[in-house]
Amino acid sequence: MSSTFSSGPDTGPLRTAIGIDVGGTKIAGAVVTGRGDLVEARHVATPAHADAEQTVAVLAAMAGDLTARYPDVETIGVGAPGMVTWPTGHIASAPNNAYRDLALKDRLAEATGLPVVVDNDANAAAWAEKRFGRGVGHRDVVVLTVGTGIGGGVIVNGDLFRGATGLGGEVGHTIINPGGGNRCGCGAFGCLETEASGTALRRLGREAAARNPDGAIARLAVGGEVTGEIVTRAAKDGDPTARTLFEELGTWLGLGIASIVNNFEPEIVILGGGLVDVGELLLAPAQAAYQRHVVGRDVRRLPPLVPAALGPEAGVIGAAALALDELKPVAPVP
Amino acid sequence: MSSTFSSGPDTGPLRTAIGIDVGGTKIAGAVVTGRGDLVEARHVATPAHADAEQTVAVLAAMAGDLTARYPDVETIGVGAPGMVTWPTGHIASAPNNAYRDLALKDRLAEATGLPVVVDNDANAAAWAEKRFGRGVGHRDVVVLTVGTGIGGGVIVNGDLFRGATGLGGEVGHTIINPGGGNRCGCGAFGCLETEASGTALRRLGREAAARNPDGAIARLAVGGEVTGEIVTRAAKDGDPTARTLFEELGTWLGLGIASIVNNFEPEIVILGGGLVDVGELLLAPAQAAYQRHVVGRDVRRLPPLVPAALGPEAGVIGAAALALDELKPVAPVP
Repeated sequence: MSSTFSSGPDTGPLRTAIGIDVGGTKIAGAVVTGRGDLVEARHVATPAHADAEQTVAVLAAMAGDLTARYPDVETIGVGAPGMVTWPTGHIASAPNNAYRDLALKDRLAEATGLPVVVDNDANAAAWAEKRFGRGVGHRDVVVLTVGTGIGGGVIVNGDLFRGATGLGGEVGHTIINPGGGNRCGCGAFGCLETEASGTALRRLGREAAARNPDGAIARLAVGGEVTGEIVTRAAKDGDPTARTLFEELGTWLGLGIASIVNNFEPEIVILGGGLVDVGELLLAPAQAAYQRHVVGRDVRRLPPLVPAALGPEAGVIGAAALALDELKPVAPVP
Repeated sequence: MSSTFSSGPDTGPLRTAIGIDVGGTKIAGAVVTGRGDLVEARHVATPAHADAEQTVAVLAAMAGDLTARYPDVETIGVGAPGMVTWPTGHIASAPNNAYRDLALKDRLAEATGLPVVVDNDANAAAWAEKRFGRGVGHRDVVVLTVGTGIGGGVIVNGDLFRGATGLGGEVGHTIINPGGGNRCGCGAFGCLETEASGTALRRLGREAAARNPDGAIARLAVGGEVTGEIVTRAAKDGDPTARTLFEELGTWLGLGIASIVNNFEPEIVILGGGLVDVGELLLAPAQAAYQRHVVGRDVRRLPPLVPAALGPEAGVIGAAALALDELKPVAPVP
């Protein structure tokens, strides 16, 4: 049991929902209050090669287990990776999961007897920041979650922006380096996600270690593989090569943010995800590239880049909040 | 007097507005009906080096002239290039015009005594397509106007998308080639506008003529400068070099569209502007690059790319429609 963020004084009885965050390696579930507080959380490994049936069974079991202990939960929200349509909650594909073409919203509602919403996992995390984190008080927000990949959620006029069928707001697939960039899981070349994520850092680190087997990165990785954590440690130790890699990563991140801000003009850009925890190593070059490339830099107040308030629990908290807000919408920010 | 497009049966008396389209070389004005029909149009050269005062005086004189002949006009809409805030109608800057920091909406309302709206020129053109062109019947639309530059307008949920203060939806400044690209008027490198516009075509043509002074492009330009029109003529004559330049231009255009669709997921992408008149020379490579790079190409119906229905008058028609719709909003698409 852990307490997180509170959205201020509440009236009436405290509502609860189940939030579920489906990942490539683990599935997290929690009972969450309408104030964004975690009541009880659990997780299971994502079953390898689970098809649609097995995935529905795992989620239904987790939900059944939590509703048995908290019979007052009103609804279930699921954040899942991949192409998720809205409001239908249908997963067309998910590059890192085995299932395809899964009508998850309908299947889980049938299995549990509760109202269910299913959205993209990055949208769920973004909604948590909007409701309980750095997005509170803002109507127009972009949230980027920089981890193994880069997920994004866009809030426009107080609501999640989803495009015509839920496939919009895929800001991690803003294309910034199609000529020189790497192939993305989506099939394109040079998406923001391929150039500025943890996966990109690991790739850059491996290339650097291969070029210089006596360098700090290669030495730290002796007996194992170069990981993003190793590059981070080398950079924090002052290794100039590792710091250059963060410069490169941060520059792509800032370029992507400039392009996204040119499209969406939020009031604020919130950066979450594990890689953002390294701080200024990444954020300083990102900020510099963003300022250099965004439209109208000389004649406007730029939307600030700020680190997220919520941690890895943003996914379950946001999924639960989405489900509760769908039953009873929040009052708009004045 | 010319008739353009009609939005179907109307009820009640026919409303009229003045639409004004401010360009870098000319200012067009027209009386336009609520059905998008042009009643009377005129234009003047944009006064060279006109400051804010002179610009307001020119627009007020044009409006005064038209209201004297059509006293029933209800309102004035202006589409102007540059960074235009909404709903305040303040022009922070306009790269190709001399004025800066111009409170055009307030100034023109004061000068004419009529309600005024001022928006970005590309938004006005996009609104014309939404109301009277290929966007009719759609709620989520992206319009790109490919000419000397690339302007863009985004319609979300039936309304123009403007971002927090009117500076959003700048899809012509989607950054697609920051490493190898050219410097944009906005100061960044590799914006869609610098890589896929008429200006880009002229630049590519000049480079090709310099490389090969005996080639078709150089020969067609003898005694003059290489222009986009010359490259177009060479391509239509079958010159392989000129066709390659269109391949390059169209590929960048398609890449930009993929990135924009990943962000906004419209139902349809409408391409207008003079360069689109060349047809398949540009559209075929754009379509191919778009399909190769957009997210989820295998699991979804892609928003189609279609040519615009309206021509160069889209700017004045859309500006007038914006003004009328601001006084009395259109009923939403069911």
